[in-house]
Amino acid sequence: MGDGARHIPEATVSRLPVYLRSLAELLDDNVPTVSSERLAEMAGVNAAKVRKDLSYLGSYGTRGVGYEVEYLAFQMSRELGLTRDWPVAIMGAGNLGQALANYGGFTDRGFPVACLIDADESKVGTRIHGIPVYAPADLPGLVQELGISIGIIATPATVAQAVADHVVASGIKSILNFAPTVINVPEGTFLRKVDLALELQVLSFYQEHRTPDRV
Amino acid sequence: MGDGARHIPEATVSRLPVYLRSLAELLDDNVPTVSSERLAEMAGVNAAKVRKDLSYLGSYGTRGVGYEVEYLAFQMSRELGLTRDWPVAIMGAGNLGQALANYGGFTDRGFPVACLIDADESKVGTRIHGIPVYAPADLPGLVQELGISIGIIATPATVAQAVADHVVASGIKSILNFAPTVINVPEGTFLRKVDLALELQVLSFYQEHRTPDRV
Repeated sequence: MGDGARHIPEATVSRLPVYLRSLAELLDDNVPTVSSERLAEMAGVNAAKVRKDLSYLGSYGTRGVGYEVEYLAFQMSRELGLTRDWPVAIMGAGNLGQALANYGGFTDRGFPVACLIDADESKVGTRIHGIPVYAPADLPGLVQELGISIGIIATPATVAQAVADHVVASGIKSILNFAPTVINVPEGTFLRKVDLALELQVLSFYQEHRTPDRV
Repeated sequence: MGDGARHIPEATVSRLPVYLRSLAELLDDNVPTVSSERLAEMAGVNAAKVRKDLSYLGSYGTRGVGYEVEYLAFQMSRELGLTRDWPVAIMGAGNLGQALANYGGFTDRGFPVACLIDADESKVGTRIHGIPVYAPADLPGLVQELGISIGIIATPATVAQAVADHVVASGIKSILNFAPTVINVPEGTFLRKVDLALELQVLSFYQEHRTPDRV
């Protein structure tokens, strides 16, 4: 981790996981090298942007050959902090929290779900998909004990802000918000939002502009 | 819907919902106009890109004033096909399917959940969060009857491809895949993927490059 990495623009950081996913597909297919054009196509951006983004990692490729897939994937994983695990706490053990706890894609990629937190006393002390459910008051201790670094908000929108406040007060510095509402966090806390409806809007664009005979 | 809209680059289409979300926030705050710089900041891209993207919609703003928020939001909604409803079918009534069925952000934004589809006979015929559950064999009839235009795959990864094939065979042309696996669809079907772990990787980047004393 060089100091230089701090200066990677946020938009570039947001694209690194998309590139990494494309590289993983290439690795699966045993493809040894990739051009910026091909990687751009896979990631849905233009080739000049790919070259610019990768230059922030110190990767410039080789003219006529492109980038070595395996090495680039390693560099990118290291930049993204994926060479270690980041335990997460899922706030809310309702359907969404349970679905996330059972989502195969987290643990596989370095985000083991350490615990579920729920205010419902009938759930506290049980296990859901093998993951223990604790009360909100237990969170600060769990953060210390299990090294939890990311809190995922999977509660109803109405309580999302209060839950986020509790996550921050418990010592967690990164929050991923799935609740369909805007939440605010103090400076020094990283917040990202997953908006499950965004992709539907992309699909409706194509439906709107394609369908010759509307239903 | 002009023919020109067909030529909007895919990367631009992907950003339109992000701009629209920012515009909705501005509308909530009764902000009448917005500069490309401010919109760029809200959407996490650069201002030149915002101007280029909006030019595809025929929106150029006014020098020194910016864009009219309400009109731009209307234009964008129209482009995205959000002036009508797009009923969706959720494939899989497990935790993820149930969570999506109960997700407030869909119906509000023009994507009413028409039905859940599940192979589990004990679920067929029931309602979950008020939404009826049908068997896979019922899907073609439901597509006709309810005008379902988008299928959301919320099944385990192992059956996602077979379910996607059934969705396509039932006459649905757009698929949003939540299962953590790659699925293939025939030409003429639109496919988008939601990768719930991508945003976690963005957070781990910032954790990795910020934390002075690792946990």
